[in-house]
Amino acid sequence: MSTNRKLRLGVLASGGGTNLQSIVDQCQALKIDAEIVLVLCNNPDAGALQRAEKAGLPNTCINHRDFADRQSFDRSVVAALLKADVELVVLAGFMRIISEVFLDAFPQRIINIHPSLLPAFPGLQVQQKALDYGARFSGCTVHFVDNGVDTGPILAQAVVPILAEDTEETLSARILQQEHKIYPHAIQLIAEGRVTIEQRQVRIAYAEKSETALINPPL
Amino acid sequence: MSTNRKLRLGVLASGGGTNLQSIVDQCQALKIDAEIVLVLCNNPDAGALQRAEKAGLPNTCINHRDFADRQSFDRSVVAALLKADVELVVLAGFMRIISEVFLDAFPQRIINIHPSLLPAFPGLQVQQKALDYGARFSGCTVHFVDNGVDTGPILAQAVVPILAEDTEETLSARILQQEHKIYPHAIQLIAEGRVTIEQRQVRIAYAEKSETALINPPL
Repeated sequence: MSTNRKLRLGVLASGGGTNLQSIVDQCQALKIDAEIVLVLCNNPDAGALQRAEKAGLPNTCINHRDFADRQSFDRSVVAALLKADVELVVLAGFMRIISEVFLDAFPQRIINIHPSLLPAFPGLQVQQKALDYGARFSGCTVHFVDNGVDTGPILAQAVVPILAEDTEETLSARILQQEHKIYPHAIQLIAEGRVTIEQRQVRIAYAEKSETALINPPL
Repeated sequence: MSTNRKLRLGVLASGGGTNLQSIVDQCQALKIDAEIVLVLCNNPDAGALQRAEKAGLPNTCINHRDFADRQSFDRSVVAALLKADVELVVLAGFMRIISEVFLDAFPQRIINIHPSLLPAFPGLQVQQKALDYGARFSGCTVHFVDNGVDTGPILAQAVVPILAEDTEETLSARILQQEHKIYPHAIQLIAEGRVTIEQRQVRIAYAEKSETALINPPL
């Protein structure tokens, strides 16, 4: 067990929380030098809340429906994160747009995972979009959050092939497998203090080739 | 040696012609059931013309500067291709926009290769754009040509990683290696009569998983 102080994570989720679970598992297995100090959901029915409860993690729901606008919701979320001394905000299926209020409170300290190889297919329902386009590959991207939609500097990506028989469900599942690998890995790179952003390029100190560009086992 | 009739290719190039060369080599090695019946350049200095000459292939230059507009240039190109009984038009670094005149003459019979994983990074100087964006992967795409810029249905793609130390030159070279593999391969799929287009998805009959989604050797 590392004696280093651990990176304090706040994980935000709106849904089932499988990406949260992969981070919980890696923290518990001491594979990453981080600890989740708050799980925050905007939706009281989020499965992520139950996962947090089960793992014995501090968790809270701040329901966006209780707020008049995005800024006041974000101010409340930021207050909860600051109170828990969160150092890195990890969006794990958090279905709310992040406002400037939030970005200003955690500059270059908010990361997201997106189920496509950005800049291809930003936005929603992107697995279906990749199928409809007839792309031969898709994947997932861990990126820093900026004020655009899925436009921030890229930390890590993983590729998966798209197969002729794929449906939205099978492709999503194949991508999700990779999400569960690269998201904890990207968090560990930050925990190790090896990540810097130059312009919009994310540099990893002492990187192995395979650390930020993962390929699903060869076809 | 196959006794089947060979698919008649017209290859259009503006530059050095390394993609032309990879097709010439595969045809000569009888790896693809196709023959190049015309190499056509818009630029009298194109290295592709010398490669064609050396390989003993029919070749011609139609200089776009001799024409008043794109349509009249395209009509002349189409006439040359039809005269040579070309069945499939293969753009290999052909730096001219294809007009409707040309598209109408060879419906779903014009293919192009582009040095990115479309729909990411259409247009020009795309290797530098991928580097500037901080993407972790790029690659190349063989697609049917439609009336957009690099928007047509995708036949095959290959992925390569982007490395921290990459320059435009090293990345371009890594992608080009894959271009030389997937372009002849895509031509062979058409020669075998296995390719159909539904909506914008290109279906390959009896496809192996690896036939249209190639990954550069694992990292």
